Amino acid sequence: MPKDARLAMDQDALNAFLDTVFPQVKDDFWVERVAPYEITLRLRVGPQHLRPGGPVSGPAMFGLADVTVYLMTLALIGPKALAVTTNSSLDFLRKPKAGTDLLAEGRLLKLGKSLSVGDVLIYSEGKADPVARGAMTYAIPPAGSAADAYSG
Amino acid sequence: MPKDARLAMDQDALNAFLDTVFPQVKDDFWVERVAPYEITLRLRVGPQHLRPGGPVSGPAMFGLADVTVYLMTLALIGPKALAVTTNSSLDFLRKPKAGTDLLAEGRLLKLGKSLSVGDVLIYSEGKADPVARGAMTYAIPPAGSAADAYSG
Amino acid sequence: MPKDARLAMDQDALNAFLDTVFPQVKDDFWVERVAPYEITLRLRVGPQHLRPGGPVSGPAMFGLADVTVYLMTLALIGPKALAVTTNSSLDFLRKPKAGTDLLAEGRLLKLGKSLSVGDVLIYSEGKADPVARGAMTYAIPPAGSAADAYSG
Amino acid sequence: MPKDARLAMDQDALNAFLDTVFPQVKDDFWVERVAPYEITLRLRVGPQHLRPGGPVSGPAMFGLADVTVYLMTLALIGPKALAVTTNSSLDFLRKPKAGTDLLAEGRLLKLGKSLSVGDVLIYSEGKADPVARGAMTYAIPPAGSAADAYSG
Repeated sequence: MPKDARLAMDQDALNAFLDTVFPQVKDDFWVERVAPYEITLRLRVGPQHLRPGGPVSGPAMFGLADVTVYLMTLALIGPKALAVTTNSSLDFLRKPKAGTDLLAEGRLLKLGKSLSVGDVLIYSEGKADPVARGAMTYAIPPAGSAADAYSG
Repeated sequence: MPKDARLAMDQDALNAFLDTVFPQVKDDFWVERVAPYEITLRLRVGPQHLRPGGPVSGPAMFGLADVTVYLMTLALIGPKALAVTTNSSLDFLRKPKAGTDLLAEGRLLKLGKSLSVGDVLIYSEGKADPVARGAMTYAIPPAGSAADAYSG
Repeated sequence: MPKDARLAMDQDALNAFLDTVFPQVKDDFWVERVAPYEITLRLRVGPQHLRPGGPVSGPAMFGLADVTVYLMTLALIGPKALAVTTNSSLDFLRKPKAGTDLLAEGRLLKLGKSLSVGDVLIYSEGKADPVARGAMTYAIPPAGSAADAYSG
Repeated sequence: MPKDARLAMDQDALNAFLDTVFPQVKDDFWVERVAPYEITLRLRVGPQHLRPGGPVSGPAMFGLADVTVYLMTLALIGPKALAVTTNSSLDFLRKPKAGTDLLAEGRLLKLGKSLSVGDVLIYSEGKADPVARGAMTYAIPPAGSAADAYSG
C-alpha cells in the first residue's frame, strides 16, 4: 500500500462520524487507533450483544468486522454513508471471554475506484488468540453520485 | 439427501424452541414452513434491524441466515443449544424493500456427525429477486457431550 | 430475475467460446444446458484433476465453479474475456465418486452493471447429494472498455 | 498461539513430504520458511498455471492458498495425508505480475482437535501489495483413524 497515504479522517473524525450517522450504535463502537490501511476498533460489549449463556453473538461479531472495514475505507476516502457491503466471510475460532470487550484489528488490502477489501482479526481484550477472522468487500459509489451502490 | 428423513422438531416445536432459548429475539423470527433439509424463516423487520435511511442492516441479515441454518439442523437432530457457527459467507445483492419482512429460504446441504452445512437465499416478502445469499457451517457437539464445540 | 431475458450466447456459442479462449482446458468442460440465469456444466474428469488416491482436487472444483458462473454471465452479456473473478467461497461436502464426471448446477443471482454473482452446486454424475457448493463474484469491465477489471 | 509450540516437520521435512505425496505438483511448490503457526510458500509459476494473456489462474491461486494452510497444519501435527479442506474463501485483489513467482504468507489461526483454520496473503515476488487473500479450514481425521474426514 502507498506509504505516503494520508488520512482523510482521523480518530476524532471517525468517532464523531459514528455518533452522527449511526446514533443507534454510537455507544457500541470506539476507534482506538487509525493509520492509513490499519485500524483498531473496540466493541463495548453489552447485554444486547450476547447470546444465551454469555458469549458475544455472531451478528455482533459480523457487525464489528463490517464497521471495521467500513471505517478503514472512510479514513482514506472521507465520509460516504452510501458505501455498502457486498461480500463477507467469517470464521468463528474460539469462544469470546465473558464480560470482556472485543478489539478488531483491521487491514485494508485494496482500495480501488469501486471496491475496497479488508480483513479483520477479532480478539477478546487481553487475550492473545483471535476469536474470529473476517474479510469484507465494500462497494464505493462513484464520486459525486447519489447512486445506490446496490445497482453495481 | 435421504428422502425418508424424519423431522425431530416440527414447525410448532421450532417456534417454541425459539421462544424458550432466544427470548430476546423471539418476536423477530417465525418458522413459516419446515421439511427435512428445507425451511422458510421470516424476519419480522422492526426498527432494531434497520440502518439509517431504512434498509435492513447487515448484522440483521447475518442473524437471519445464521438462525435459518441452525433451525434446519435442529429440525433433524433435535434441540441442541450448544451447536455453534464456525463459518459463514454472505453476498449482499440488492437493497431490501423498506418496511417489508424478509423471508429466508434454506437448504441443508450436509448433515454429518460433527458438521452441518446449509445455504440460504433471502428475499423481501413479495419480491422475486433475492437480496442476499449466504452459507453457514455449524459444529455439532458430540452426542451426550456438554463439550464446547469451539474446542473442535 | 427477468423472465423475458434472452441468451446472448446459447449452448453451441458457449462451447465454441471455451474452445477458442481456453484452448488448454477445452476438453475439460462442456456446457450441457443453458437458460437465462441457469446452466449445467460438465467437468470431464481426467488424471490432471485428481489428488493422490483418486478424488477430484480442490483446485479442479474451484475451476469448475469459477467457469460455471463465468459462462452464466457471458450467456447473458456476450463474450467478454476480460471479466475477472473478484471473490469466491466454497464448501467441500463429500468425497466425489472416483472415476466419475462432475456436473455443476449454476444459478445467476445478480447481473449488475459492474458485478455478477452466482452460486453453484457440484455433483458426481448420477449421485443425489452435492459434493461441493460455491459462490463466485465476477467484475464486468465497463462497456467498450479495454480496462483491467482488477482496477475496480 | 502457544509460544512454545514445536515443529513436528521442519522445512526439509515439508519439502520432502510434497515430493512424496504430491509427485504431480512437486516442482510447483517450495517451502521457503516455516515456524510454528507461520509459513512462506513459493509457487514456481509455469505455463500450466496461466490464463490466456498471462495472469496466473484462479485455480492455481486456490491451490497455493490450500497447500499453504495444509502445510502449516502438518508442520505442527505431522504428516497426515487424509486431512481435507472443508471451506475456503478467496478475494482476488490485483493482477499478478507476469512471469513472476507467487509467494504465500500463511498464518495458522486455530489448531483444534478436529479443525484447523488459517489465512493467507499471496504476493507477486518483489511487489508490496497482495494479489489475493484467502482463508481455509481443514478437517483433521481423529488420531489413529483411517476414517474419511468427509464424513465429519
